[in-house]
Amino acid sequence: MTIQVEPVAVVRSTRRELSDDGWDTEASFIELATHIDPVALTGLDTFSHCLVVGYFDRASEGSLIRHPRGNTTWPLVGIFAQRAKDRPNRLAVSVCAIDRIEDNRLHVRGLDFVDGTPILDIKPWMAEFGPRGDLRQPLWSKELMASYWSDTSAR
Amino acid sequence: MTIQVEPVAVVRSTRRELSDDGWDTEASFIELATHIDPVALTGLDTFSHCLVVGYFDRASEGSLIRHPRGNTTWPLVGIFAQRAKDRPNRLAVSVCAIDRIEDNRLHVRGLDFVDGTPILDIKPWMAEFGPRGDLRQPLWSKELMASYWSDTSAR
Repeated sequence: MTIQVEPVAVVRSTRRELSDDGWDTEASFIELATHIDPVALTGLDTFSHCLVVGYFDRASEGSLIRHPRGNTTWPLVGIFAQRAKDRPNRLAVSVCAIDRIEDNRLHVRGLDFVDGTPILDIKPWMAEFGPRGDLRQPLWSKELMASYWSDTSAR
Repeated sequence: MTIQVEPVAVVRSTRRELSDDGWDTEASFIELATHIDPVALTGLDTFSHCLVVGYFDRASEGSLIRHPRGNTTWPLVGIFAQRAKDRPNRLAVSVCAIDRIEDNRLHVRGLDFVDGTPILDIKPWMAEFGPRGDLRQPLWSKELMASYWSDTSAR
């Protein structure tokens, strides 16, 4: 079974090359494709955040189990237990803050997609769709995320 | 630009028909496709929750602006400001709790996908990828979600 999808928008970002950390220094917006009427964004700015589904168009599939970022001090984990871009179907998901809508552009903050990333969907973030109950995650994932948004090591 | 994706798994759920509310009464698991080695799930159970990308295979595209659930007491909002299934690319995203891994099956709690839903990706939930800063969402979305997980109106 093969499913065909078509980008509804594209990311425009000050980050043009792939890199792992320090995403909060970037500015970006999502520009709707010409075949999508901007009415599709109506009311999205009544939400503070949205969830964006993108496509890692510069990634390949990669192996199904590996050390995150190739770091052998972290455990071998399956691709579905990590967020690496080299994954089956190469789908990307990110939750970012909504700044404003301007015609066919959705300006956002904290979107970790490089310039040119095709966008497949945008959904409003509702608290009720977040994780329910206590959260638990392994230590390696916290270490990996330490400089993800604000790259303190580069200062 | 057309992108092709292929299901990596399928949902098995006690809910076999489409309906809106009361999802917490359902039991479900995600079964990997035969072409995906179960090593891909390794370590996912060290996380409490995961994010699942599915495909609304029984939906159509629908209009780009509409009243959520056709309820005219709620405002007209764009498709990217609501979670309706009849949307461009018909992608579904849900965050659910991980119960256990059993061979090629990931048992979950709180997954709002009906039986047979194709799954395109599974990602671990990391707190750092959740919304950052204060949350804001319109009243209609809270009213819509009131019976979504636990259908109190049906009791």
